[in-house]
Amino acid sequence: MSNDKYLKKIIIEKVLGDELIEKDDVVIDESRINIFLNGEKTISMMCIPKDQEAHAIGFLMSENVISSVDDITSIEVKNDGLEVYIEAHVDENSLKNLYKEKTLTSGCGGGVTGNVAGSVEVPFNQVAMNVKASTISKEVKIFYDESELYMLTGCVHKAMLYLEDGTTVTAEDIGRHNAIDKVIGKCKLAKIDTTKSVLFVSGRLSSEMVVKAVMHKVPIVVSRTAPTYLGVKTAHTHGITLIGFARGKKMNLYTHQGRIDV
Amino acid sequence: MSNDKYLKKIIIEKVLGDELIEKDDVVIDESRINIFLNGEKTISMMCIPKDQEAHAIGFLMSENVISSVDDITSIEVKNDGLEVYIEAHVDENSLKNLYKEKTLTSGCGGGVTGNVAGSVEVPFNQVAMNVKASTISKEVKIFYDESELYMLTGCVHKAMLYLEDGTTVTAEDIGRHNAIDKVIGKCKLAKIDTTKSVLFVSGRLSSEMVVKAVMHKVPIVVSRTAPTYLGVKTAHTHGITLIGFARGKKMNLYTHQGRIDV
Repeated sequence: MSNDKYLKKIIIEKVLGDELIEKDDVVIDESRINIFLNGEKTISMMCIPKDQEAHAIGFLMSENVISSVDDITSIEVKNDGLEVYIEAHVDENSLKNLYKEKTLTSGCGGGVTGNVAGSVEVPFNQVAMNVKASTISKEVKIFYDESELYMLTGCVHKAMLYLEDGTTVTAEDIGRHNAIDKVIGKCKLAKIDTTKSVLFVSGRLSSEMVVKAVMHKVPIVVSRTAPTYLGVKTAHTHGITLIGFARGKKMNLYTHQGRIDV
Repeated sequence: MSNDKYLKKIIIEKVLGDELIEKDDVVIDESRINIFLNGEKTISMMCIPKDQEAHAIGFLMSENVISSVDDITSIEVKNDGLEVYIEAHVDENSLKNLYKEKTLTSGCGGGVTGNVAGSVEVPFNQVAMNVKASTISKEVKIFYDESELYMLTGCVHKAMLYLEDGTTVTAEDIGRHNAIDKVIGKCKLAKIDTTKSVLFVSGRLSSEMVVKAVMHKVPIVVSRTAPTYLGVKTAHTHGITLIGFARGKKMNLYTHQGRIDV
């Protein structure tokens, strides 16, 4: 099984009422990945050491440090998967700003998002893309049914991009930010256009999650759980269709509902 | 209702199968709080603008920037609750290190934890404190039953310190890191000793959550959900009793089980 390497086997004691039993268990790995940009250590991330290239590229593009995959000369994963070396043309200003604001986000994954909130201007998303509510419901179900690492450990978030042709790209991580960066990075590396797609996330929709959709021009974002007010406001301002509490045949449409056909 | 001010009323469209209805809804507020330390802006946090003093103090003490509340000369919350001004004697080294490592954590709340992972040495927790498994079960139930903001919005994490005398201190936030920092900050400000206490958290137990318990010498940590491997390892190394999947009368004991009486 390909996911084995991200799992650690341990022995635990399980309390069952007034009984105590010893039991084999499995928990998710969590590693510190270091990203080196043009020879310099730029950032560390606590994450599942899987899809590191996509993660690094997705993160750097989410933060506007790299604008296009065409600006990347090389990517190399070294040191047992714990180091990613990228040579690329970077936006020096965004790189400098990355930590200027020192904002701790509220979301899993600890995104920084100093750039989007600040200096980067992203046009209002006017993309015409219509999706049936029933398609959203169906995809949410598939999204959860197919999360193997979650089923095994109960400790991962997942992100999925549903593309216009009905295909999907998925990624998992401990952090919901990371899962989004990974799935975006996968698309960027494969030169898949994300401007007509739906982003499914397993976590709550705080502002930084929406900001990632804004940055990558993804017009529709869906979660099974709740948004924050700032998440709703950000989606409203930037033309993103925000859907929360998508469970069974129900869902809440918070903004720009016109893209959803009921 | 005292929580009203953290809630925003919005109108949404709700999909119910092939029906679409307009509906009043309520979402949690999410604000950027700026912390000024000795006159200088030190950090911003995306969080619920509640218990800001405790949040700021808890965070700075979690990161070893402030070692004791006795080192604090003044705390003031200004600008409609969005700015916290602290005058205090700080550990310059920890302050400098705070962002040196630029580690994005995997956990909600985006803790930095550069210091604990690095330069700060914390002795192995040898505290003798025994708690009945049935007490843990009972407290987990109360912990979830009494989360008003969660019930209303589905969008908050909670932390609770259960003290030796059976009393509890609680805090809520969008981020699970923040909730812990707030509850720790509350105890520090009230000069409550946390060395014999149980920390209940609503989120997953990734390493940084455990690190906060390590820093504040809290010997037992309980969650209803899963730990990561690094979370387990950190608890093992530092003498913390780590309990996950505490649901009903069941729970998993990952480390230092001796403190739990079954």
